[in-house]
Amino acid sequence: MNDMQNELPDTECWELLASQELGRLGYHLLDEVHVVPINYVALPDQERLVFRTTEGSKLLGIVMHGDVAFEIDQVGERQAWSVVARGRAVQLDGDDARQAMDLPIHPWVADDRYVLVAIKVTEVTGRRYDLLRPRT
Amino acid sequence: MNDMQNELPDTECWELLASQELGRLGYHLLDEVHVVPINYVALPDQERLVFRTTEGSKLLGIVMHGDVAFEIDQVGERQAWSVVARGRAVQLDGDDARQAMDLPIHPWVADDRYVLVAIKVTEVTGRRYDLLRPRT
Repeated sequence: MNDMQNELPDTECWELLASQELGRLGYHLLDEVHVVPINYVALPDQERLVFRTTEGSKLLGIVMHGDVAFEIDQVGERQAWSVVARGRAVQLDGDDARQAMDLPIHPWVADDRYVLVAIKVTEVTGRRYDLLRPRT
Repeated sequence: MNDMQNELPDTECWELLASQELGRLGYHLLDEVHVVPINYVALPDQERLVFRTTEGSKLLGIVMHGDVAFEIDQVGERQAWSVVARGRAVQLDGDDARQAMDLPIHPWVADDRYVLVAIKVTEVTGRRYDLLRPRT
């Protein structure tokens, strides 16, 4: 442990997750690890993160191996923080999908045919760092 | 494909990798995927990314399964871009490690005992997106 990095309580991790709309999803695909940026919405009450994706390799990877990691971070002048959520990704359907359709998810690309995916978060960890030097 | 997302040539991906100092590393650990923020230096001529890490789970994961993905991104008012490098991570030692010690890597945490790791990049992909709405 290092006294310059402070672990964040779960409630603060969820507040930070709810404050952002872009994160990075790590997932398995055919024994490879992949990382992609995604726009998402956090639902702290349900301990879920929701995003949408077009049919393709990202979704395929998640369906084949639902274990995922999701990361957000921010660097300021003197401090930085990062939050990592771990969990399992599931494709939403039925009522779950209909409810999630109204969430303010802002994907980078217009996707006419998309599916909604929820990450059921099982573990969240966050750290705040006092930077070793002021950022320029 | 979507005409609003444009693939970037490899040279531009490397220019972007060289322009940043913070990215996110995705790696395997015991059949789980992990994502962590890391400070790094890009060496386009060698097609390598170099970072340092203290002994711990991150390094352990890389040694056990060297397949990694590394992501950077930036969101502007009307455009966003992301670059993903895939490759294999190797711990540097000997002359390689001594040469890499002078690289301007700025880790968030002071680490007295660290090792230098190079990602030998085998594939780099980048995309630029015209955002669907101006960011506020």
